[in-house]
Amino acid sequence: MSKPRRMVILTDGYSDSHTAKTAVCLLRYRPEEVVAVLDRHAAGKTCQEIFVVGGSIPCVAMLAEAGGANTLLIGIAPAGGRIPPHWRPMILEAIARKMTIVSGLHQFLREDPEFSQAAAEHGVQLVDLRDNQERDVANRVGIREGCLRIHTIGNDCSCGKMVTSVEIANGLKRAGVDAAFVATGQTGILVAGSGCPIDRVVSDFVAGAAEKLVLANQHHDVIVVEGQGSLFHPRYSCVTLGLLHGLMPDGLVLCYEMGREAVAGMESVRLPLLEKVVEFYESAANIMHPCRVIGVAVNGQKFSEEVVSAECQEVSRRLGLPACDVIRQGPQKLVEAVVELGSKLGKK
Amino acid sequence: MSKPRRMVILTDGYSDSHTAKTAVCLLRYRPEEVVAVLDRHAAGKTCQEIFVVGGSIPCVAMLAEAGGANTLLIGIAPAGGRIPPHWRPMILEAIARKMTIVSGLHQFLREDPEFSQAAAEHGVQLVDLRDNQERDVANRVGIREGCLRIHTIGNDCSCGKMVTSVEIANGLKRAGVDAAFVATGQTGILVAGSGCPIDRVVSDFVAGAAEKLVLANQHHDVIVVEGQGSLFHPRYSCVTLGLLHGLMPDGLVLCYEMGREAVAGMESVRLPLLEKVVEFYESAANIMHPCRVIGVAVNGQKFSEEVVSAECQEVSRRLGLPACDVIRQGPQKLVEAVVELGSKLGKK
Repeated sequence: MSKPRRMVILTDGYSDSHTAKTAVCLLRYRPEEVVAVLDRHAAGKTCQEIFVVGGSIPCVAMLAEAGGANTLLIGIAPAGGRIPPHWRPMILEAIARKMTIVSGLHQFLREDPEFSQAAAEHGVQLVDLRDNQERDVANRVGIREGCLRIHTIGNDCSCGKMVTSVEIANGLKRAGVDAAFVATGQTGILVAGSGCPIDRVVSDFVAGAAEKLVLANQHHDVIVVEGQGSLFHPRYSCVTLGLLHGLMPDGLVLCYEMGREAVAGMESVRLPLLEKVVEFYESAANIMHPCRVIGVAVNGQKFSEEVVSAECQEVSRRLGLPACDVIRQGPQKLVEAVVELGSKLGKK
Repeated sequence: MSKPRRMVILTDGYSDSHTAKTAVCLLRYRPEEVVAVLDRHAAGKTCQEIFVVGGSIPCVAMLAEAGGANTLLIGIAPAGGRIPPHWRPMILEAIARKMTIVSGLHQFLREDPEFSQAAAEHGVQLVDLRDNQERDVANRVGIREGCLRIHTIGNDCSCGKMVTSVEIANGLKRAGVDAAFVATGQTGILVAGSGCPIDRVVSDFVAGAAEKLVLANQHHDVIVVEGQGSLFHPRYSCVTLGLLHGLMPDGLVLCYEMGREAVAGMESVRLPLLEKVVEFYESAANIMHPCRVIGVAVNGQKFSEEVVSAECQEVSRRLGLPACDVIRQGPQKLVEAVVELGSKLGKK
């Protein structure tokens, strides 16, 4: 992607904030690259109205309305990662318009005969963000202990781990710390420009791929590595533990969404108490490296400022940890917790 | 593989019991299918002399000495799973002799240009046991609670989980119980004739693949599912947790090898106390389903019968659990523990 990316984000029919989290994050962190969102049901509205981010960027009903765009981004992340059938004509139209197609889905564009043939005909690039050939096991060699490793974790998937990681890294940078956000998912990779799609890595090599992310970024004083899934998730706990054990973090930031009581998409599975979440993550992390939870990121997107503020105070009291909503209140408390941990460990 | 399999197992230069565990297990559970082991360094000896199993099956220096063989099995499982370079001519010779090549390595035979071209020329089948297209997440739908789910776990990799699973399943069958061994690794798949190479599954789908193993086998009264890796393994804990959470076992059997103090192949990483192993596995399993450790399988292959017997008594006292060496003493104590759990849960 050498030419500046000018994206249309395809979310057609899936513009809720959970399913369209890729779109929401790109609108938040790369709005300058977004020309429009393609969703017939939202056409005529602004992204701000639909996604509560993105300002005046328009929602459109047709590609023809998104002048100057050179890239179509598949902007949803459904469980299992497959392309909705009614999107196929829209993707084919984008290919015919010579747009690069970028996808973070498990179902690769390049393995789709129709898409790959159309792309070849029109000289178009198909970018599968989850494609990887990770084949290295973790080795515990060459890790620079001078780099402070921070990792975001959650009681569930899709609860704000990526956003919290970016906000903490940006907050550290504003405070003059040499910090970097390290991406482990397709959206984070689009935001950061690099990273590893860890949930698409063959399970034997997840810890190895996580270790390689550390080796590639440990020239910074602090790395804030995006978490994936949850140790309490019936589907994705495997990804979460491999990442946790491969990264060997010094400190964890616990993320959760206020009001959520069951696993997203699996309503029969109740979420555990936060105390239990902290305890189990610390047990799991400490198998490999001394580590503790140093703060809590409260995702209060569905509640008023007052209710969120009260929740932060209450959870801070319960867990004995700083807590804030990084979007509503800024990440300052968590940034301070990271700096304090670095001082305590003599890492900075 | 419709014709009866008559195998030569290739272990050349790697005939120690840890690296050649695939060979050892095939010699133990499928000796009728093994014509010879190919290892120049062991040539002239019997498998019994080299591997302590396999009786009079010969070790040979050349394929030509293995009359009647129709299959060459890659008989080692190195970390990272790559083919040793000096094996290439031997594999090409087997292809030229029109033998089926069976491999459990991560490096697929069919993706090797030289092997795939030779196989096409000679009309030979290349079987990659780890190849899979698992793309389903766990759904928690259709699980028959009447089936008792038993799972072997370990404090490390390569400590006897597969052998323990087979021995318990066979012991249950001898006791008249409708039980099945369920394989999750390449060697187990060769022994059982089916299963899932779980460590080669994309991480997002490990729990889903494990759940499918339950769905495919839960018509039995008891399933004994082979564990992989260890929650304490720096490389493979991801695989282990995905399997544990996807299977939702009712009971766990803890396996360990006497005398091992560090992670196999990672000497700087000490193994935890067995008490901690039990505690953490139970915490991890209980996130998804009520479960406890019901017995211990002591792998005493490096020690005398007396020393093993004393260890079993001591570990049984320490953990308050039945303990035995399933090879030295038979699996009876663990079989009884499974039957007792089934009765307690009203599952049989």
